[in-house]
Amino acid sequence: MRIRKKKWAQNEIDNSKLIINENFDGNWEKYFGNKNKICVEIGCGKGKFINVMAQKFPDKNFIAIEKYLHIIAMGVRRANNFLPNLAFIIDDVINIEKYFSAVKIDSLYINFCDPWHKKRHAKRRLTHKNFLDIYKKILADNGKIYFKTDNVPLFEFSLNQFCEDGWKLKNISFDLHKTNFDNVTTEYEEKFSALGMPIFYCEAFF
Amino acid sequence: MRIRKKKWAQNEIDNSKLIINENFDGNWEKYFGNKNKICVEIGCGKGKFINVMAQKFPDKNFIAIEKYLHIIAMGVRRANNFLPNLAFIIDDVINIEKYFSAVKIDSLYINFCDPWHKKRHAKRRLTHKNFLDIYKKILADNGKIYFKTDNVPLFEFSLNQFCEDGWKLKNISFDLHKTNFDNVTTEYEEKFSALGMPIFYCEAFF
Repeated sequence: MRIRKKKWAQNEIDNSKLIINENFDGNWEKYFGNKNKICVEIGCGKGKFINVMAQKFPDKNFIAIEKYLHIIAMGVRRANNFLPNLAFIIDDVINIEKYFSAVKIDSLYINFCDPWHKKRHAKRRLTHKNFLDIYKKILADNGKIYFKTDNVPLFEFSLNQFCEDGWKLKNISFDLHKTNFDNVTTEYEEKFSALGMPIFYCEAFF
Repeated sequence: MRIRKKKWAQNEIDNSKLIINENFDGNWEKYFGNKNKICVEIGCGKGKFINVMAQKFPDKNFIAIEKYLHIIAMGVRRANNFLPNLAFIIDDVINIEKYFSAVKIDSLYINFCDPWHKKRHAKRRLTHKNFLDIYKKILADNGKIYFKTDNVPLFEFSLNQFCEDGWKLKNISFDLHKTNFDNVTTEYEEKFSALGMPIFYCEAFF
């Protein structure tokens, strides 16, 4: 993704109360002031999805991770410090484990991650088994991954990675928008779907 | 599938040594005279696949099941009573269990079965969990199902049925002919693939 730098981004981040410090101790119950379920989106992009989810489900806590400051700033601005059940982490997903050492994740969302189409970059895909092994450690009992993509080779790769790594799958869909599954769209998803292209989807659990 | 009746079909069947009688006792070791692995294709159609497989792997035994006499007759004629490791059963797949009470199946092939696209006919699909439960009973330890189809809704349905029914999946492919998997084609597959359409594939085991 090409990243347009925004002059206001650093300022938005600096003044936001929703940004998690890298020295955060992982005590989400203390942070949110409740024991509500933890839902995490990795690679949240411009943050439409996580903002809508946080508003739609006020009885759950939402955390978005995104490594690019100039992208996540848009999600932060959208939240406008209003949402008590939303937080942002500016970091690479590879470091996710340290934020969830104490409290585990109930729902992990992977939405339209970079397909890294070159075979030699397979390890960068967020559904590579190296990542899946990290998710195993931070998912709660009965925790689940919700994965969607428009990219056929990535979907095929991901199904195989889940299966090889011993995950169970359910609600596999080759055209999510034609199902009756409850679905909050991302910015990218809306653009893509408007072209009539199908969205691929599955849920994975251990 | 529209079935053209062939005048020679009944005669071909009556004179073939490869047809399994419905009173068969299930002793495949006695029938083939060896303990080689048992490979079964359900709904073999015109029988190209099973004939090629039987020739390609003389150290395995192949059995094809097809309920339509006028279709299976073509596979029988193709075999021309030559192949010592090939047999045909003229019966509905729903009755498969009785033929494999004694000797279990190592490889079960489901190739381009009828998608039965109407929801009310879902139970007729050969990957419906009612059928999967039958296959479980007749598969050997380490036995495997090899499934291929050109039909996207059927593939999606089948993956979900396998997963819901507790099967493990591997080698899921959204374009079988672009993989390096060893693949013997069916008549239908060749026609369809020649149009540039992808073949969907997976392996399932318990």
